[in-house]
Amino acid sequence: MPSEFDFIKAIQQKAAAQSAADLVLGIGDDAAVWREQAGRETLITVDLLVEDVDFKLAYAPPRWLGHKALAVSLSDIAAMGGAPKFALLTLAIPPTLTFQTSAPATETFWQEFFAGYFSLAETYGVQLIGGDISSAPERLTIDSIVIGHCAAGRAVRRNGAKSGDAVFVTGSLGASAAGLKLLLNGARVGEATNEAMSEAAIRTHLRPEPRVEFGRRLGELGLATAMLDVSDGLAQDLSHICADSSVGAILDFDAVPVAEEVSVVTTNAADAFALAVSGGEDFELLFTANTENEAALLMLADECRLRLTRIGEIVPADDTPAIQLRRANKLSPLSPRGYDHFADR
Amino acid sequence: MPSEFDFIKAIQQKAAAQSAADLVLGIGDDAAVWREQAGRETLITVDLLVEDVDFKLAYAPPRWLGHKALAVSLSDIAAMGGAPKFALLTLAIPPTLTFQTSAPATETFWQEFFAGYFSLAETYGVQLIGGDISSAPERLTIDSIVIGHCAAGRAVRRNGAKSGDAVFVTGSLGASAAGLKLLLNGARVGEATNEAMSEAAIRTHLRPEPRVEFGRRLGELGLATAMLDVSDGLAQDLSHICADSSVGAILDFDAVPVAEEVSVVTTNAADAFALAVSGGEDFELLFTANTENEAALLMLADECRLRLTRIGEIVPADDTPAIQLRRANKLSPLSPRGYDHFADR
Repeated sequence: MPSEFDFIKAIQQKAAAQSAADLVLGIGDDAAVWREQAGRETLITVDLLVEDVDFKLAYAPPRWLGHKALAVSLSDIAAMGGAPKFALLTLAIPPTLTFQTSAPATETFWQEFFAGYFSLAETYGVQLIGGDISSAPERLTIDSIVIGHCAAGRAVRRNGAKSGDAVFVTGSLGASAAGLKLLLNGARVGEATNEAMSEAAIRTHLRPEPRVEFGRRLGELGLATAMLDVSDGLAQDLSHICADSSVGAILDFDAVPVAEEVSVVTTNAADAFALAVSGGEDFELLFTANTENEAALLMLADECRLRLTRIGEIVPADDTPAIQLRRANKLSPLSPRGYDHFADR
Repeated sequence: MPSEFDFIKAIQQKAAAQSAADLVLGIGDDAAVWREQAGRETLITVDLLVEDVDFKLAYAPPRWLGHKALAVSLSDIAAMGGAPKFALLTLAIPPTLTFQTSAPATETFWQEFFAGYFSLAETYGVQLIGGDISSAPERLTIDSIVIGHCAAGRAVRRNGAKSGDAVFVTGSLGASAAGLKLLLNGARVGEATNEAMSEAAIRTHLRPEPRVEFGRRLGELGLATAMLDVSDGLAQDLSHICADSSVGAILDFDAVPVAEEVSVVTTNAADAFALAVSGGEDFELLFTANTENEAALLMLADECRLRLTRIGEIVPADDTPAIQLRRANKLSPLSPRGYDHFADR
């Protein structure tokens, strides 16, 4: 979607022209940052979820939808190394979901939605402090805003990766994309025909777990040179780090942690890899760090009960494309759009 | 819409249960406030505009729509006595408006939209620092977020009105509602059949001027005991102040500044009054203050080149309904829904 990126860039350039003295970071990263208190900075992020574009009511249990609405924004704050603090929520509500005490199904929908939202908010001590509601002619639209804090200068941007840094990713990749495939093929949550692995894949897609603790502590320790959350897919998101940091990257085929849930949609290793690097919506944290810090990073992940994998390295930006894939000691280009084997299908 | 209010209240109660130490003000006012820097507080507000609910593309010039998207949120910050600083903007964009350089009409739409948005932003030194964009199946949906600052403890809430205070309103009321009536009856911007007064009414509705300077300086001076912006209509908004402050109010029929633009839709004085108190979307500032401060307030309004009118007084909350109308020294109840003469039509 180059036209959308051009569009965003045009807005960004316009916005950057009016720089304010105490702004630390505006458009172009996972969150905007401005200076607050002595020694503290505030982060804000907003994520839009449109019915039938970003989710379908036919397969998203309302409780999980409420969870996900907050989770995607918490993930952005985590990807900045921040601690989430406040949230705002905007809802454009179609007639079918207008809150009425006389309509039990609708009432249940919103009770469930907010149960999911507030359960996640309470887990991380996030307080909802505002929002707006309007009616909508057709579709439910959700806009989720989260504000967080970090120590001054500690926000982890996308532009700090250095040649020689190692590339790390939390958790595993591809389960969300596998879950989406199952849903698009008609699978539904809780249907008896689904086995546990399919349920897990679907759950990963519909109810992602943001890496709040790990992101916050990584930010506090100052160990990451660049970071974002995997929303567009590993290949694409790594290319964002490369572009913003003016570096290249080599990704190790055998190191990428392909989620075992991917097995429910393919048993072919190349297909599984393709799904893991191109699938998107994993909401894992992808970051770069000096190799000296690997032991400390693994210890932190262990304390957060998270898998952490070193999947490649940052190299000078001499090569095009920016990302190369290393398999059996041979390098081949990897498109930001993903693994070609998958793109061809 | 009592069901929507119940809905919001339920969310609000849920949110209030998780109170954070440095939160100054959460859900329930024009903006949320939390403590920042020594001596400074941050305010954030969000306003949702849904196509065919809050605006129609058929009659909103894109430049004015961009202006209004920001104006409504600036108005909220002004109504808190704050100075706006940053903004975020979220857009759900239907296929007909997807940005493509190959579609000149669409490109012009967004150029105009952002010209209106940024022109207003620059007027008040507001910087766009983030946002999100998604596609939407049918309608354009805009979510506008503005962040501002005020000195610690200076945010003007809705709950500080005291018996004996005077009630003031900036500008005049009813022009926006008159403009909307004209638009709904088929009038359009710039059509030769419209006379200047009709154009002014339509402009007030489609391109409201937020009272940014007056609100900010009123906040700095600390002269208002309660304040909000007139979005639902004077009667309804004054009832919000009464409810939150546990007081009643008397409104003087002859004092309410009915906009002269109202004359384009009615020549009947009672109808004109009804439109002024019930119409909504005036985005004037409605506030209460100690009568001792009247001279200072009028001077401030003069410096901001704004009309300011004392329209009534705050009384104890003994009476039901909370708002009474005084006309020819006789009191009669005024429904928050507005003036009955209008409601009967």
